[in-house]
Amino acid sequence: MISGRRSRSLLSLTLLCAAIPSLAHGQSLSALPIMPLPASAIPGQGEFVVDGQFSVTFDGFTEPRLLRARERFLDTLTRETGIPFLRETTAGTARFQVHTGGPSKVIQQLGEDESYQLVVSADGVKLSAANPLGAMHGLQTFLQLVRITPRGFTVPAVTIDDKPRFPWRGLMIDSGRHFTPIPAIERNLDAMEAVKLNVFHWHLSEDQGFRVESKVFPLLQQKGSDGLFYTQAEIRQIIEYARDRGIRVVPEFDMPAHATAWFVGYPQLGSGKGPYQIERHWGVFDPAMDPTRESTYQFLNLFIGEMAGLFPDLYFHIGGDECNGKEWDANPRIQEFIQAHHLKDNAALQAWFTARVQKIVASRHKVMEGWDEVLQPDTPKDVVIQSWRGRDSLLDAAKRGYRGLLSNGYYIDLNQPASEHYLVDPLEGIADKLTPEQTESILGGEATMWSEFVDGEIIDSRIWPRTAAIAERFWSPQQVRDVPSMYERMATIAQKLPAYGIEYRATSEQMLERMSGDANPEALRVLASVVEPPKKYARGGMRDYTSLTPLNHLVDAVSPESETAREFREICKRIAAGTGTPQDWQQAHDWLTLWRDNDAKLEPSLTKSDLTEELVPVSQSLHQVGEIGLRALDALQKGEAVAAEVQKQDLASLAAAEKPQATLLLMVAPPVELLVKAAKSQ
Amino acid sequence: MISGRRSRSLLSLTLLCAAIPSLAHGQSLSALPIMPLPASAIPGQGEFVVDGQFSVTFDGFTEPRLLRARERFLDTLTRETGIPFLRETTAGTARFQVHTGGPSKVIQQLGEDESYQLVVSADGVKLSAANPLGAMHGLQTFLQLVRITPRGFTVPAVTIDDKPRFPWRGLMIDSGRHFTPIPAIERNLDAMEAVKLNVFHWHLSEDQGFRVESKVFPLLQQKGSDGLFYTQAEIRQIIEYARDRGIRVVPEFDMPAHATAWFVGYPQLGSGKGPYQIERHWGVFDPAMDPTRESTYQFLNLFIGEMAGLFPDLYFHIGGDECNGKEWDANPRIQEFIQAHHLKDNAALQAWFTARVQKIVASRHKVMEGWDEVLQPDTPKDVVIQSWRGRDSLLDAAKRGYRGLLSNGYYIDLNQPASEHYLVDPLEGIADKLTPEQTESILGGEATMWSEFVDGEIIDSRIWPRTAAIAERFWSPQQVRDVPSMYERMATIAQKLPAYGIEYRATSEQMLERMSGDANPEALRVLASVVEPPKKYARGGMRDYTSLTPLNHLVDAVSPESETAREFREICKRIAAGTGTPQDWQQAHDWLTLWRDNDAKLEPSLTKSDLTEELVPVSQSLHQVGEIGLRALDALQKGEAVAAEVQKQDLASLAAAEKPQATLLLMVAPPVELLVKAAKSQ
Repeated sequence: MISGRRSRSLLSLTLLCAAIPSLAHGQSLSALPIMPLPASAIPGQGEFVVDGQFSVTFDGFTEPRLLRARERFLDTLTRETGIPFLRETTAGTARFQVHTGGPSKVIQQLGEDESYQLVVSADGVKLSAANPLGAMHGLQTFLQLVRITPRGFTVPAVTIDDKPRFPWRGLMIDSGRHFTPIPAIERNLDAMEAVKLNVFHWHLSEDQGFRVESKVFPLLQQKGSDGLFYTQAEIRQIIEYARDRGIRVVPEFDMPAHATAWFVGYPQLGSGKGPYQIERHWGVFDPAMDPTRESTYQFLNLFIGEMAGLFPDLYFHIGGDECNGKEWDANPRIQEFIQAHHLKDNAALQAWFTARVQKIVASRHKVMEGWDEVLQPDTPKDVVIQSWRGRDSLLDAAKRGYRGLLSNGYYIDLNQPASEHYLVDPLEGIADKLTPEQTESILGGEATMWSEFVDGEIIDSRIWPRTAAIAERFWSPQQVRDVPSMYERMATIAQKLPAYGIEYRATSEQMLERMSGDANPEALRVLASVVEPPKKYARGGMRDYTSLTPLNHLVDAVSPESETAREFREICKRIAAGTGTPQDWQQAHDWLTLWRDNDAKLEPSLTKSDLTEELVPVSQSLHQVGEIGLRALDALQKGEAVAAEVQKQDLASLAAAEKPQATLLLMVAPPVELLVKAAKSQ
Repeated sequence: MISGRRSRSLLSLTLLCAAIPSLAHGQSLSALPIMPLPASAIPGQGEFVVDGQFSVTFDGFTEPRLLRARERFLDTLTRETGIPFLRETTAGTARFQVHTGGPSKVIQQLGEDESYQLVVSADGVKLSAANPLGAMHGLQTFLQLVRITPRGFTVPAVTIDDKPRFPWRGLMIDSGRHFTPIPAIERNLDAMEAVKLNVFHWHLSEDQGFRVESKVFPLLQQKGSDGLFYTQAEIRQIIEYARDRGIRVVPEFDMPAHATAWFVGYPQLGSGKGPYQIERHWGVFDPAMDPTRESTYQFLNLFIGEMAGLFPDLYFHIGGDECNGKEWDANPRIQEFIQAHHLKDNAALQAWFTARVQKIVASRHKVMEGWDEVLQPDTPKDVVIQSWRGRDSLLDAAKRGYRGLLSNGYYIDLNQPASEHYLVDPLEGIADKLTPEQTESILGGEATMWSEFVDGEIIDSRIWPRTAAIAERFWSPQQVRDVPSMYERMATIAQKLPAYGIEYRATSEQMLERMSGDANPEALRVLASVVEPPKKYARGGMRDYTSLTPLNHLVDAVSPESETAREFREICKRIAAGTGTPQDWQQAHDWLTLWRDNDAKLEPSLTKSDLTEELVPVSQSLHQVGEIGLRALDALQKGEAVAAEVQKQDLASLAAAEKPQATLLLMVAPPVELLVKAAKSQ
């Protein structure tokens, strides 16, 4: 969709794969276009051709879920190939045989066997697994191996023995700050299945919205959601949808803070005077549940009882993060309570609250989960700690006998490159400080899609494809960490995602058309291909955002990680280091020329729209970066020196271009700096 | 998605509109970016700004359907603008007031009042209508008027008084030859609502498939559908979905021919020996119901009874087309019957059959509808004739007192340009031969999406945007027939269709990626932008197609009408006529250069895929057409003569390039012929 990317062929990758005589972990294994990479893969001879006669049969254990998985598999395969497959198979003609040993648990459990073996040969495909979870993973691996060749759609012969490294591989979606429509949840569950994630952590309440229908306390959704909530029927439908894909659904109801929306309907739950309004801003807010009233626990007992019945998973997340205690400080009755109970501070009061809540959760036969803050001296040992703070608190928890999950480093809302998330390992730097048993207590991790700047339209581009890299971290052997291979394979899975309904490239294109009013906004596409959203928490400081601010600007339409900028950066590094290939020089020259000349085409149209006029200086900066880059490239090519004054001026211009404008970062300015600095000056 | 198109700005169009002092029918009215154009529109002063405070209130008659229409309206408006709208309106703050006079019929009827008035001013919007049908049309008109400006998303002040020209404005989808998945049906109903079509004619049985669950005769779907059929619950859901959008659902069960799939489960219905198989080829086949057995009518009585209960619409389509009579000829018992009943030929036998079926349909309180062939001397006067043969049979029917619909000329499966369909008028050439009352009996028309070469993936690109032009023919005043205006406005509505879920441009892009295995197939896009599928019935003769042939080649991915080729043709006409603008010359030069140089980029990749290797000669032809075009352009520009021998050779090359290759037509060859012929030769 975005112009100016280099063409990248799936074929070259798979041909490379076919040429490798035997595969072990690491670099050579990376040649398989699979994400996450399997635990083991041994290539065979020849390839299996997927044609109109293709069909799948099951033997061993079967269940309706497996038959639905086959339907879904064939539907996806049709979308991948355009080939229609007849569903009714004549016995004996099936060329894909699936053997399943036995059932998995009715309510999917942490740590169930997810292994499978997939054997592809020219004659047929055999998939075997202990239970449907492994069988479904094997089907997904097969789908990733399908590619077009001169012989049609084929899968290379290979024997894959695969199982996950961690049993808890999650994606959290924050449906509290911005509501996530049901279709968006469903297609993200489809994509989670594609990359073998197995936990959907659903963050369902926030200061900005309470998103679940409660029949016991209906004012929660009636007053706390702006009408944007999930009915219980929809929740059940999603849980069923997830189970069909081998995915557990863990609900989170954040307390005692991040809970303003609860108090709009039930102000007596809060510690302040009320009345409360749905929060429209972003940040950490003062409202917090009143931990001193018995009525709070009576309410939570009924509420958690209702939700424990709705969500079958054994784990129940109560949040517990970022309680600033200000409402407690300001409430004399709560202060009295603190003194009467000899609690030393607000953290201790929260611990007191958490302990009460934990008992309620346990009384419903659930295991409590919470963010770092719930870990206190007396926290029961079965509580699972999800760390947003970092591996140190995970280490601390494991040493004290708690099970934990890492989310720090996997905050996909912060618009960091996939490589940064990819290289974060839940065990790195802490495994050697733990006993083997304590290491086992690190269950895995979760990517977290916080939604301050994410709505139902752009959520796919915020989650994908980068979460595929995180999924690989959770599934594949620890030593799989080659970044270039990751990017190659992530590009392949990205190309497959539309077959799962993840259409972020089409959405981005439509947003460019919408903001420009132009059916073919070519020059805007060029600009869009080289900018990224601000990183970490910078964006919130640049404008006054509320939960009602439209997310329809260029920053919302572009990818969190520009492929063009990343490739250009690699090229510039090689050129600056003197190792640039002729293709590198040519590509750098083509791109810099495109960018230099783009503003002349783009500028006249930008002022025609309220949504694009802010881009005028960004487009000018790109022009300048192109001009500076071409000058540097020319000097490097000719081996000529650049006047020191010019070079100094160019570096100053680049420094200016690197500053955020229109809440956008011009990602090709820093690589041009490399070129300018590599050129001789005089 | 397809490179090489000229940028076309919505803004220039709407600015043009704002500049027009007053609007009447015809050219000046065309400036409103609405399709279909309203009966009357008078521009006002200023514009209405759509912002986050926007809301809609109803007064007068309300019903749940109207509230759902508002939800849908706001959802679409959000997709059009990216602005989230709060659903809960404080009384008195609404800026869009809808007044509805009263209810429409519970079962939507032919000829109900569909008029509305929409008054947009800077201060607010008022929509009024006699009933929900008109109100829903008015909401759609508003959505079409929204565009981005320097002041944000706005709607120009205007007063629109609107009503349809014809009461029956249909789209037929053939779900028999290729099954149409439910989501495809739904999104096409959404798009039908956008252009004010009000009849979904659902062709549900064919030689290649019987697509509805019958509980009385379950072998119909069990043996006749390959498992691809609609459950009765799904049918009811679609009928409800359509009613919510002001659309009637008229079912068609084709008989006595086009019915092979019925006979697979119930061979006794057929006139041949059986057994029967689901037909896999395309064409007109011999199997036909046996009109001589009472058991046939007993079956149809029960079956039509069941379907009459499922489909609430008053009209019931029994097909009746293309019975070749061969099974009747070959069956001695049927021949005896013909003699015994003094029937003169097979047509008379079919008439006998139709009369019996008509009585069954009437006994279920339905009005029968059928294709031309059902019109026989004794056909009851309330039968509606749908003409696939042409206006002559419509004229004949009307003169004899029958009501009729035109479909001849609206066969969107034939890949003709929108302009050809657009200029077909149901009344042209026959209105002056009819009394006013007979003219009234021409109810309107239907676009027909026959599905030999259409599956659930590509159906959107086959129906849209061309059907919007046909919808305008059925809705707008007869004198609205300016082709350039139609194309301008069709481009605008095409840009809006993704907000209704019609994503054919994204689908086309994904198909190009799939067939090439390339994430960014730029050169293939260039080729795709200038080719079209064969016209009319040519494609079937080019290859051996069956109903299981994958529709995943370039011919399936490209648009039935290339925008680039159409614009290029207009440019070449002007250049050849000596009226080319400097922009025309520049654009022609740019395009021809792009095309000439494309093969060098594309050719190496084509042989990497089984699906693209057939394109090698097409790509070479494009190269040659570019070269010839540039030579002619150069000669024209310089006023120099071209050697007669060269010109002759060029014309021969162009003639070769115009022949179909790889089931594709290279649409830019004929315009280049214009250039070559315009150049002087010596």
